[in-house]
Amino acid sequence: MLRLAAASLSRLPASSSFLSSPSRLSSLSSSSSSAVFRRTMASMKALVYEGPAQKSWKSVPKAAIQAPTDAVVKLTSTTICGTDLHILKGDVATVTPGRILGHEGVGIVDSVGSGVSAFKPGDRVLISCITSCGKCLYCQRNMQAHCHSGGWILGNEIDGTQAEFVRIPYADTSLYAAPKALADDALLMLSDALPTGFEVGVRSAKIQPGESVAVVGAGPVGMAVLMTAQFYSPASIIMIDTDDSRLEVAKKLGATHTINPAKLGASSTILDAINAINNEQYTASGETPNPAMSAEPGVDVAIECVGIPQTFATCQSIIAPGGRIANVGVHGTKVDLQLQDLWIKNITITTGLVSANTTAMLLKVLQGGKVKPEALITHRFKLDDIEHAYEVFGNAAKEHAIKTFIEA
Amino acid sequence: MLRLAAASLSRLPASSSFLSSPSRLSSLSSSSSSAVFRRTMASMKALVYEGPAQKSWKSVPKAAIQAPTDAVVKLTSTTICGTDLHILKGDVATVTPGRILGHEGVGIVDSVGSGVSAFKPGDRVLISCITSCGKCLYCQRNMQAHCHSGGWILGNEIDGTQAEFVRIPYADTSLYAAPKALADDALLMLSDALPTGFEVGVRSAKIQPGESVAVVGAGPVGMAVLMTAQFYSPASIIMIDTDDSRLEVAKKLGATHTINPAKLGASSTILDAINAINNEQYTASGETPNPAMSAEPGVDVAIECVGIPQTFATCQSIIAPGGRIANVGVHGTKVDLQLQDLWIKNITITTGLVSANTTAMLLKVLQGGKVKPEALITHRFKLDDIEHAYEVFGNAAKEHAIKTFIEA
Amino acid sequence: MLRLAAASLSRLPASSSFLSSPSRLSSLSSSSSSAVFRRTMASMKALVYEGPAQKSWKSVPKAAIQAPTDAVVKLTSTTICGTDLHILKGDVATVTPGRILGHEGVGIVDSVGSGVSAFKPGDRVLISCITSCGKCLYCQRNMQAHCHSGGWILGNEIDGTQAEFVRIPYADTSLYAAPKALADDALLMLSDALPTGFEVGVRSAKIQPGESVAVVGAGPVGMAVLMTAQFYSPASIIMIDTDDSRLEVAKKLGATHTINPAKLGASSTILDAINAINNEQYTASGETPNPAMSAEPGVDVAIECVGIPQTFATCQSIIAPGGRIANVGVHGTKVDLQLQDLWIKNITITTGLVSANTTAMLLKVLQGGKVKPEALITHRFKLDDIEHAYEVFGNAAKEHAIKTFIEA
Amino acid sequence: MLRLAAASLSRLPASSSFLSSPSRLSSLSSSSSSAVFRRTMASMKALVYEGPAQKSWKSVPKAAIQAPTDAVVKLTSTTICGTDLHILKGDVATVTPGRILGHEGVGIVDSVGSGVSAFKPGDRVLISCITSCGKCLYCQRNMQAHCHSGGWILGNEIDGTQAEFVRIPYADTSLYAAPKALADDALLMLSDALPTGFEVGVRSAKIQPGESVAVVGAGPVGMAVLMTAQFYSPASIIMIDTDDSRLEVAKKLGATHTINPAKLGASSTILDAINAINNEQYTASGETPNPAMSAEPGVDVAIECVGIPQTFATCQSIIAPGGRIANVGVHGTKVDLQLQDLWIKNITITTGLVSANTTAMLLKVLQGGKVKPEALITHRFKLDDIEHAYEVFGNAAKEHAIKTFIEA
Repeated sequence: MLRLAAASLSRLPASSSFLSSPSRLSSLSSSSSSAVFRRTMASMKALVYEGPAQKSWKSVPKAAIQAPTDAVVKLTSTTICGTDLHILKGDVATVTPGRILGHEGVGIVDSVGSGVSAFKPGDRVLISCITSCGKCLYCQRNMQAHCHSGGWILGNEIDGTQAEFVRIPYADTSLYAAPKALADDALLMLSDALPTGFEVGVRSAKIQPGESVAVVGAGPVGMAVLMTAQFYSPASIIMIDTDDSRLEVAKKLGATHTINPAKLGASSTILDAINAINNEQYTASGETPNPAMSAEPGVDVAIECVGIPQTFATCQSIIAPGGRIANVGVHGTKVDLQLQDLWIKNITITTGLVSANTTAMLLKVLQGGKVKPEALITHRFKLDDIEHAYEVFGNAAKEHAIKTFIEA
Repeated sequence: MLRLAAASLSRLPASSSFLSSPSRLSSLSSSSSSAVFRRTMASMKALVYEGPAQKSWKSVPKAAIQAPTDAVVKLTSTTICGTDLHILKGDVATVTPGRILGHEGVGIVDSVGSGVSAFKPGDRVLISCITSCGKCLYCQRNMQAHCHSGGWILGNEIDGTQAEFVRIPYADTSLYAAPKALADDALLMLSDALPTGFEVGVRSAKIQPGESVAVVGAGPVGMAVLMTAQFYSPASIIMIDTDDSRLEVAKKLGATHTINPAKLGASSTILDAINAINNEQYTASGETPNPAMSAEPGVDVAIECVGIPQTFATCQSIIAPGGRIANVGVHGTKVDLQLQDLWIKNITITTGLVSANTTAMLLKVLQGGKVKPEALITHRFKLDDIEHAYEVFGNAAKEHAIKTFIEA
Repeated sequence: MLRLAAASLSRLPASSSFLSSPSRLSSLSSSSSSAVFRRTMASMKALVYEGPAQKSWKSVPKAAIQAPTDAVVKLTSTTICGTDLHILKGDVATVTPGRILGHEGVGIVDSVGSGVSAFKPGDRVLISCITSCGKCLYCQRNMQAHCHSGGWILGNEIDGTQAEFVRIPYADTSLYAAPKALADDALLMLSDALPTGFEVGVRSAKIQPGESVAVVGAGPVGMAVLMTAQFYSPASIIMIDTDDSRLEVAKKLGATHTINPAKLGASSTILDAINAINNEQYTASGETPNPAMSAEPGVDVAIECVGIPQTFATCQSIIAPGGRIANVGVHGTKVDLQLQDLWIKNITITTGLVSANTTAMLLKVLQGGKVKPEALITHRFKLDDIEHAYEVFGNAAKEHAIKTFIEA
Repeated sequence: MLRLAAASLSRLPASSSFLSSPSRLSSLSSSSSSAVFRRTMASMKALVYEGPAQKSWKSVPKAAIQAPTDAVVKLTSTTICGTDLHILKGDVATVTPGRILGHEGVGIVDSVGSGVSAFKPGDRVLISCITSCGKCLYCQRNMQAHCHSGGWILGNEIDGTQAEFVRIPYADTSLYAAPKALADDALLMLSDALPTGFEVGVRSAKIQPGESVAVVGAGPVGMAVLMTAQFYSPASIIMIDTDDSRLEVAKKLGATHTINPAKLGASSTILDAINAINNEQYTASGETPNPAMSAEPGVDVAIECVGIPQTFATCQSIIAPGGRIANVGVHGTKVDLQLQDLWIKNITITTGLVSANTTAMLLKVLQGGKVKPEALITHRFKLDDIEHAYEVFGNAAKEHAIKTFIEA
C-alpha cells in the first residue's frame, strides 16, 4: 500500500521491471462462497481483484458487521493508490482473488457493532488506511502500522473501499469524525497520502526551519511530502523528478527549486545542481562566503519517494554531514549503502509504513485553512466508472495524473 | 534587556508601577576618566546613560580593541529595546552612569584583535545581543545566555551599540556574517527581537502543526513570537492585547484571531473568548462535536510577552491539559501559581533569557524569503536623532510604534 | 490520587491543615440500592467509604460486568495510597459515601465482557490506577490521565480495589498481563507508585546521565522517584526530608546524599547544603575548580514529592540555570512563583497526573532484574485486616511505613 | 581513528582483508625539515609513522606553540586505538610519513598561547581525540566531528599524543580539566573510547529503560558501548562476538547475555538465539505469552562495532520493527541494505564520528562513581616501550587485549 511506486516508476529510467514475475494465481474458485450470500443478503457494487491483471466492477454481498467493534461505512468518495497498481500486477502476495480493492475513502456510517461507542449511523467519517486495535503492544507504542490484528489490511487482507460499502474493524480507533467544514476532496487525501508523506517522510526526517530539503520523486506521495514539509518552514524544497510536467505542479505546490536529472549536462550531477542552488545567493550578489561558515555540499534532508535503487542512491549522494534520509518508497530489492563514505558523516536513515497517528493533527492543520491537499486531485470520476479511473491513473505520466477523486 | 516590558506595560491595566523605586544614583563623576581618553584618542558619538531618567548623545572615546578576541564594529544601524527604557528608569542595577546603551545592531567590522579569525575589517556583520565566549560550561551546553564572561553584557555591563562604534568581545562567537541579500532592516530584527521570541517563546513551547497558540502581549517581542510561531504551522494564533491598533498589526502579521480583554463583556472571560474561537467551526456549520473527541477548553500553548502578574495569570487561566506556557516577559515581582488547579493538568512552564544560538537558523529562514521581520519596523530615524527615537518609542502605544530603525 | 500527600505531610512542619474543612456529607441513604442487590446477587467483602473519617469493612454485592468492555478481577493483593487518606478526610469531592476505596492491585481475571479480547478468566493481571478508553482524543495523544471516560476513577468515581473483586472498565487498555516471573510484591508497586514517580517526576524532568537531582519528600512517591531516577544514571541523587528514618531508607535505595532541613545550622540553607555536596570532590582534594567550568550553584533537577508551598519553594531555591522542576505532589493551595528571579534562568516546571503509559516499559525493566520495587514494602497485612493497615499507614512517620502489602 | 576495526576484525571470519592494498609511500625524505629543527630546538621522544608497516620511537623536535590558541601538553599517559593499526597498514591516506601517531592522552599543560584562557601551565588535562575550533558552522551545530579546521586531526593531519609532548590547537575547546579524584586510568578512556561508544552508539540509538540491546563486536569500542548503554537501564544487553574470552570480559562488564555466532548450531541463526533469550522468561515459567502483547522477534537496538559487511548484515537481521541500528564501526566498503524487508519496519539507522561533546557529561558520570572505565585496561606499558605495546595490541585476540595503558 501506501507509497506511490508504480506511478512514479514509470517516470524514472530503468525502473520498469523492478517488481517482476507476478505469481499467476488461479482465481476461478474465488467467488463461490459469495454466490451463496448473494441469494440471501443485500448486495453492493465493488471493484474486485480477480488475479493478476484482472479486476471487475460487479455485484457482491453488501459489507456487514462481523464483530462488535466493526462499523460499516457507505462510501461517498474513494481514490486509487499506486499500491493498487502493484496489487493488480500480482506483486502483493497477501491479496488473493476475490478481494475488494482500495484503502482510502470518506463516507457515512451505515451501521455499527455493539462495541462501537465513538460513532453512530449517519456520522460522516474519514477512513484511515491503517486499522488499529488500540490495545496491542504496537498500538500502545504508537506504532499502529504494526498493529497485531490491524495495520494495512483494507483492500489487502480484508475487503477495501473501492465499493459502495466497506466494513471497518476496530471502528473507534480506525475512523475519524469528518468536520463539516472540510469537503471530501480534502479529507480523502488524509486516508493515506498526506499522513504517509508527513509521518514517514517529513516527521521522520525531523525537518527544521531554515533547512534544505530534497524530495526525490514527484508522484502523489512526493507531492504529499512537499506539501507537509512546508509545515516546518525549510529554506528550500528541491523537487527532483524526470517528468517536467510534475515538476511544474510541484512549483505550484511550494517547491522552491526543481531538478530534472534527465536534463542535466553530461558531466553534471544532481549534487552539482544542488550546490549551485545552495550558492545562488552568493552567485547573485558576487559575494564570497566564509568557508568556515559554509556547510558541506548537499542537503540537510533527502526524502526518497520512489522505491528503486537509483533514487535511494541519489539520496546518499546529496546528503550533507548531519543530514537525514527518510525512505518513503516501497522497495522490491536490496540497495547499496555506501557505508565507506557515510560511516563518518553522522547521518540518519529512516524507513517505515504510515501509522496514521497524525490524522487528528492533520485534520486540525487543514481546518487552519492554509493547507489545501485537494490541490493533489487532477482527475474526477464516478464510482461506477472506476475502471476508467484505473486506466488513467495507470498512465499517470502521460495523463498528468496525481490523485483521482472517485465519487460514490 | 530583550523583552518588551515597559512598552507593553503601558497597554495593560494596573501595570504602571511594577518596577518602582529606581535607585537614584549620583552620576556626577561618571565621565571623568573618559575625559582623559578624549584628549589622546579618537572620539565617536554615542548615547550615554547618565543615571535614572538621564541620557545624552555626546562625544566619547572611540571604541577600541581591548583583548585579542575583540572586534570593533562601525554601526550602520541600531534600534531601541524595551529593556533600554527600563535601564533609563534606573531599574537595571548592573547599568552604571557613563554606560553607552544598546544591544542591537548591524555594521561593518572596523578592526579585529589578533585572536579573531572568522572576521576581518570590512566584513558586514550582525551583532548578537548575546556575547558568547564559546568555551565555558554554559556555552558548551548551548546556554550562551548564561556564558560566564558574556551573556547580555552589551549596553549593560559594557558599552553598547547606540553609538558610531562598538567593541564586541569574543567576536568570533558573537558576530554573524551578514548576507548581502539581506538589508539592515531585516537583519536588525535578528539581534534580539526575533531570536528572543523564537527561542524563549516558540521553541520552548514546542509548538506543533495544528495546535492552538495564544500570545499574551502584542509588543515587539509578542510580534516576534507571532511571526516565528508560524514556522510550525499552528492552526490558530490568538493575539491578546488591550491596544486595538497593535491587534490590527498582529492580524497583518499572521494572527488568526485577536482578543482585546478590555472589550469583553462584563461576565465574559478570556477563556470564554478562546473557547468561542475553538468552537467557531462547529457554530458556523451547526455541527455538534463528539465530546470524547474534543479537547478540554483552552489553548495548547500560551506565551507570556509582557512580564506582569496579570498576564501570567491569563496564561494559567487559558491553558489546556498537556499545554505549555512559555514565559518571555521580564518580571519584577513574584506571581501566583495556581498549583491546586494545575498540578493535575500535565502542563509545562518555561522561562529564559535568549541564547541567540538560533541566529544561524534564523538567517537561513530569512534567506528562504517567506519571513519579513522588517515588517516590525514602524519608525525610522538617523542616529544623531536617537533622542527623538527614544521619545517616540517611549510612547509606543500612542505612537503606534513597534520597532524603530535607527540608521547610523 | 496517587501522590503521597498526607503521609508525607505529617513529616513536614506546618502542613497538617493544608486541606481542611471536609464537607460533612450525610451517608445514611447510600446503600439502599445495594440492599436490593444483596438479596439476589453474590456478595463480597470490601472497604467502603462512609463519609469523612468513616469507613467500614463489610459485605457488598460482588463486582459485576456492566459493559462489554469490562472485566471483573479477583484481587490477590492491594495497597493503600496517600490519596486514600485524603479521601477519608473528605477532601476529594468526587468520592461519595458508599464508594469502595483503592486504586492499586494485582489479581486474577474472574470474568470478562463480550468486547474484551486481550484477557480471559484465569489470567493474572496488574491493575493500573488509570482507566483508559484507548480511543478518546486524550488517549490518542498518550495522555490517558485525562481520558474522557476514564483517568483516575477507581476508588474515586467508581468502586475500587480494596475488596475481594473489582470491576475494571476498558479492561483491554487498563489491565496488564502479569509475568509469572514477577511476584505480587513487585507488581503492586506498578499500579501507581512507580509509574507516578517515573512519569510525573523522572521522565518529565528529563534526567540525563551525570546530572544532579534533588528529591524533596521521602514518602512512597519520593522513594519511587529515587528508584526510577537511577534508570538514567545521574551523578547524584540528594534526598531531602525531615524524617531521618526515611532518609536512612533512601540511602539503602540509592540516594547518594541526604539532607534533613530540620537539622541544618541556623544560618545554613538547603542550597548551602547542596553546594557543599557539589563541591565535596574539590574540598576533599584541595582542588580549586576553574570558575568558568563550574555550573551555578544548585541542582539540575528538583522533584517535588510533597504538595505544599514550602517544598515547592525549596525546589525554586535550589534549581540551577537550565534546570527542571517536576512537581509530583498534590497541592491544595496556590504557591508563590519567584518569577522575578526565575524568568532569566531558563528553567522548566512540569506538573501532571500519571498516565501509566510506561507500565509496559516498567514491566520490562523489572524483568531485567536490576530494580526491586518490593523494597518499598515495609508492612504486610491480610485483606480482612485492612482497617489495621490504614491505622499503621495513617501514622506513617511513627510506624516507619512506606508502602503496605495487603494480601487478599 | 576512533573505532576498533582491526582489532575486532581479527576476531571475525572473512574480515582479514577488508582494507587491503595500502598505498606504499616513500618515506625517505620525510624528516629532513625536522633535522633542521633538531639543531636549534628542544627535542622529545615520539612514535613516528614512517610509511606503511614502519614506525619508530625516536627523537624529534619538541612540540611547540604555533598559534595563540594552542597549548602544549606533557603527556602522563596515552594509549593505542584500532585506528592506529589501520594507519600503520597505510590505510589512512591523510597520514603521511613523519607524522607522530596517537589521539588519546592525559597530561599536564606545559605552555599555552596568548589566546588560551581556560588553561594554564601546570593544569592537569584530558586530551580529546576531537579538536574543536568552537566557532565554525559545525561547532555551532554541536557537530565538532566535522569542525572545519579541527575534527580528528591529532595523529592524523597533525602530530599526535604518542610522544612526550603534544601540541593541541584550540586548547580552550579541545582540552578538559582533569578532576583530581579521577586517575589517568579512567580519564584515558574518555579521550576516545567512551565518548565514541556513548555518542555514536548509545546516544544515537536512543536506548530507553527496559529495551533489548545487541552489541555486535566486543572490541574496545563494543565494550565502551556495553559500559555506557547501562546508563539507560536496558532490560538486556546481548554481546555478540566470535571470541569467547572477550565475551567473558563482557559478562563482567554488564552484558546480560552473550552469543558466539561460531558456536551456534548449523541451522540456528543469531536471530534464533536472540529470540530464545527474549522468550527465556516464558520458557522458564512454562507461560504462554499473549501474542498480541509480544513484540516481533528481534532487538530494539543493534549496535555495530566492527565495520565489515557481515556484522552490519547481522544488525539488519535482528532488528525489530521500530528498532534502531547505530553503526559505530569504520567501514571500508559498501554494504547491502535489505530495503525490500526494512522499508516497512519503521527502523532508524545512524552513522557518525564522535564529536566528544559529551565529555563533560561523562566526566560527571565518572565522578558519580558507578562507572569504572579503567576496567577496559588489560595491559600496561611504559612510553618508551610503546613498540612492544603495539605488538601486543596488534594481536589483541591472542593477547586478550582490550585497551592498553601507556605511562609517560
